[in-house]
Amino acid sequence: MRVVDLIECKRDAKPIEPAVISEFVASVVRKEVPDYQIAAFLMAVYFQGMTRGELVAYTDAMLNSGETLALSGLSHKFKVDKHSTGGVGDKVSLSLAPMVAACGPVIPMISGRGLGHTGGTLDKLEAIPGYRVDLSAQEIEAATLKAGFVITGQTGTLVPADKIFYALRDVTGTVPSIPLIAASIMSKKLSVGLNGLVLDVKVGSGAFMKTQEKAQDLADTMISIGKAMSCDVRACITSMDQPLGVAVGNANEVIEAIEMLKGNAPGDYEEICYALGTEMLSIAKGISPDDARAELQSAIDSGRALEHMRQCIAAQGGDARVVDDYSLLPIAKDRMTVRAAQAGFVDSFDCEAVGKAACVLGAGREQAGAPIDHSVGLEVLCKIGDPVQVGTPLFEVYYNDDIKAKIASGMLHDALKISDTAPRHNALIRDIRR
Amino acid sequence: MRVVDLIECKRDAKPIEPAVISEFVASVVRKEVPDYQIAAFLMAVYFQGMTRGELVAYTDAMLNSGETLALSGLSHKFKVDKHSTGGVGDKVSLSLAPMVAACGPVIPMISGRGLGHTGGTLDKLEAIPGYRVDLSAQEIEAATLKAGFVITGQTGTLVPADKIFYALRDVTGTVPSIPLIAASIMSKKLSVGLNGLVLDVKVGSGAFMKTQEKAQDLADTMISIGKAMSCDVRACITSMDQPLGVAVGNANEVIEAIEMLKGNAPGDYEEICYALGTEMLSIAKGISPDDARAELQSAIDSGRALEHMRQCIAAQGGDARVVDDYSLLPIAKDRMTVRAAQAGFVDSFDCEAVGKAACVLGAGREQAGAPIDHSVGLEVLCKIGDPVQVGTPLFEVYYNDDIKAKIASGMLHDALKISDTAPRHNALIRDIRR
Repeated sequence: MRVVDLIECKRDAKPIEPAVISEFVASVVRKEVPDYQIAAFLMAVYFQGMTRGELVAYTDAMLNSGETLALSGLSHKFKVDKHSTGGVGDKVSLSLAPMVAACGPVIPMISGRGLGHTGGTLDKLEAIPGYRVDLSAQEIEAATLKAGFVITGQTGTLVPADKIFYALRDVTGTVPSIPLIAASIMSKKLSVGLNGLVLDVKVGSGAFMKTQEKAQDLADTMISIGKAMSCDVRACITSMDQPLGVAVGNANEVIEAIEMLKGNAPGDYEEICYALGTEMLSIAKGISPDDARAELQSAIDSGRALEHMRQCIAAQGGDARVVDDYSLLPIAKDRMTVRAAQAGFVDSFDCEAVGKAACVLGAGREQAGAPIDHSVGLEVLCKIGDPVQVGTPLFEVYYNDDIKAKIASGMLHDALKISDTAPRHNALIRDIRR
Repeated sequence: MRVVDLIECKRDAKPIEPAVISEFVASVVRKEVPDYQIAAFLMAVYFQGMTRGELVAYTDAMLNSGETLALSGLSHKFKVDKHSTGGVGDKVSLSLAPMVAACGPVIPMISGRGLGHTGGTLDKLEAIPGYRVDLSAQEIEAATLKAGFVITGQTGTLVPADKIFYALRDVTGTVPSIPLIAASIMSKKLSVGLNGLVLDVKVGSGAFMKTQEKAQDLADTMISIGKAMSCDVRACITSMDQPLGVAVGNANEVIEAIEMLKGNAPGDYEEICYALGTEMLSIAKGISPDDARAELQSAIDSGRALEHMRQCIAAQGGDARVVDDYSLLPIAKDRMTVRAAQAGFVDSFDCEAVGKAACVLGAGREQAGAPIDHSVGLEVLCKIGDPVQVGTPLFEVYYNDDIKAKIASGMLHDALKISDTAPRHNALIRDIRR
């Protein structure tokens, strides 16, 4: 089938044979399809979606467009991973992976960097002196064998089709398409041979998915791809109406994650770690949610989860002493407090603005490839529903640059709304899709 | 505005400022916008359409993307033109232009070549020995002054934006978009400074627009662009359920057109010429339809229309003696008759198949730029509703190649359906939009 005919089929929502989709993806990777035809196809998919058969063929073709990681040394282990659609203060992977690894399954996590208002797991880990996120396939296998988990960046040879499609989506207005998002995530996750995957689909002001309906649609789409590709996928739909936990930044989020492993985490952060961890362990070990939760609790209480964190940092070249000595992490020069200008209750956050304030401080980047300052960041001192007086500290800002701190403080001040009456309480875990 | 933001606006059907649209078109012509972003924009327009303001800005920017023809020597004349969306056996321009020119207005007609099942006016005219369709701006003005009309191809410098957009639409599944079609036609027509334009929007099995609703939508869209750009546009929605007139080809269509100017035309062909001519003259001279029709009739009866045809052929380098001596036109070597295999009534034509049969003979082309044989073609000997017996001639095929003739005859045989009962009569002129 000529590419123009394929585009017209999709444009008119006529079904496309899986083999035709596969050949299209293969032709794209062989550079035989001009960018303008790929762009037209992606925009047609934006409007018309994909059938389940098309989507599975598309994901499978992307997955097989380059190298896949055999990880043969881990073939006797259940490989499970977690993926988050990205949020503000979302350091869940940093504590969840060692918690689950301490219970038996292995987690070969291929993660990403931050862009815009959402932070990136790799950026956070790079706050740890020496920590490498560019492991080779062999190094991924060796590190996972040692620590039970690994958190590293994509290798150059995994899923080249996704790199091509993603670069074009970014400049053609075709990023927010649920089938394209689902295929992109699933092809990358499946390229390491996962047996199970738990998704944290964020919904709310700080999330990519602004409505619960869209979040559920994405979750169900990924679950259905997983079904067709022998990967047990589950999804937690979680609220991103306010930053998760207290710390937003890089070094400070690493500290909060380590504290979680020591049993000292803010309630919302702990709740999500346990919710996701429970699903991961249930999939991996076929046990009940209650048993899974108890195992996770024991991994924390016994110190085994923390020990796995030490092993992972060491296996990835980092200085594992940071676990016990936070002064080894980069520390910002100055700090200042943003205080409430009126009394009342914390009503809501413009979560995206909080993420952008962290960006302004230097903790994030607006453009791919820009450097970041791991030492700066902020703390969220109040949560939705908390009563405040005039002068109550709302945020603590850690900074190296006075002007940036002033701009960020102003943004933070505006990002939090105080009302006279206590707002309705929203559940953090809104839904679990299996 | 960044191009990706423009694409996203269109994708989400958010209004776009006319100035932004203009700048986009200008950037495209300056080659500053990558093809993949143009393609994504075009596909978004396919799905979301354009507001009237956007469409006028888009058309105006295309129109002004290159040279426009001042035709200052014609500034005292009313410039009116006709455009057809293309059909099978549609030789209307060839007789309509001299008919109207004989009544006073001038017709600087920029026409096109055939592709696929529809013939092209320029191809037909090139059947006349010496006839040139590559006139320069100066030659267009001179020839129009001499003959009252000109029928030539687009000059290289007119509407470059349309050339870029059209080439991309052709390979990205974005041809059948009403605003894109309307802008493409109007920008080209307006580039010669028209005061009025009459559209022949074909609808039916042989037409680009398959339903009356879409044909009306296209007509109204173009009328609305015309209103905003000081060009009085009217449209006849006409049936293309069967080939127009008798001849389908090139030299044989020229003969039929000349016969029309001598007062000897098949009824359907004559009806469309008068309908379109009436609208053109009403616009140009502000007269009633009845008066306009009488003027056209007088132009034919007096021989003035035929004389204008002679002048045009001569002005464009052709041998004007063909008007009186058809043997000067290329003539196919052989002919054969396709006969009815059953008795009944002509029920319907697969008009596109008739056009394709002419292509097979060599009268048309499947790929742009391919050569054609001006001498071959076919005659349609029966029309819908005609009673036929076994053996009644349905088509006469004029050919130079036995194998091609056999294939074409088979296609023609299958393209005409005979039924036991007489079909319902459909009006040729279905609607007139003003």
